[in-house]
Amino acid sequence: MNNVFSALADPTRRAVIERLITGPAPVSELHAPHDMAMPSFLKHLGKLESAGIIRSKKIGRVRTVHIEAAPIAAAEDWLNRQRNIWKGRLDRLSALAEHLEKESNDG
Amino acid sequence: MNNVFSALADPTRRAVIERLITGPAPVSELHAPHDMAMPSFLKHLGKLESAGIIRSKKIGRVRTVHIEAAPIAAAEDWLNRQRNIWKGRLDRLSALAEHLEKESNDG
Repeated sequence: MNNVFSALADPTRRAVIERLITGPAPVSELHAPHDMAMPSFLKHLGKLESAGIIRSKKIGRVRTVHIEAAPIAAAEDWLNRQRNIWKGRLDRLSALAEHLEKESNDG
Repeated sequence: MNNVFSALADPTRRAVIERLITGPAPVSELHAPHDMAMPSFLKHLGKLESAGIIRSKKIGRVRTVHIEAAPIAAAEDWLNRQRNIWKGRLDRLSALAEHLEKESNDG
């Protein structure tokens, strides 16, 4: 989970994810929109690969990259759990406020 | 967004979030479950505060920390968008597979 969130903490890497989520792509195509030397770009891909977010496969001379959905889903699930607990807390506060208002009207 | 994901990339900081999502707490209470010197722990709180995820307020001698939901919701929204695009792609692939199977049965 640490590696996944750390991999997401960079705009180049998030842009790569946004591209790959629509389908696999060769490294050269992934690199094209980024104004960055290839070695630096490959470091970003390495970070995504270490986090288990992408995998790559070389066929002939072309290395194609695809995304693995599970780590992204795990990160989203963690955030989603926090949001649900937060929402539950707000709902309870709101019910309490309603209850107090009713009591004050009744009294 | 970089700061938010980077703040989430640490188990101590995620534990602090999990605690604060249930309600505000004094720094001393947040620190208690962590086997870590206070200065190191305060650095983690500083990172969460820079990312806009927590805020603190000193009343008398007690500093109380509360969570800000917006940055967490923004991170979740980004991940959620990726999951939806991914799901849309799987649905299209599945529809295509069904179509091809039907064509092959008809042919």
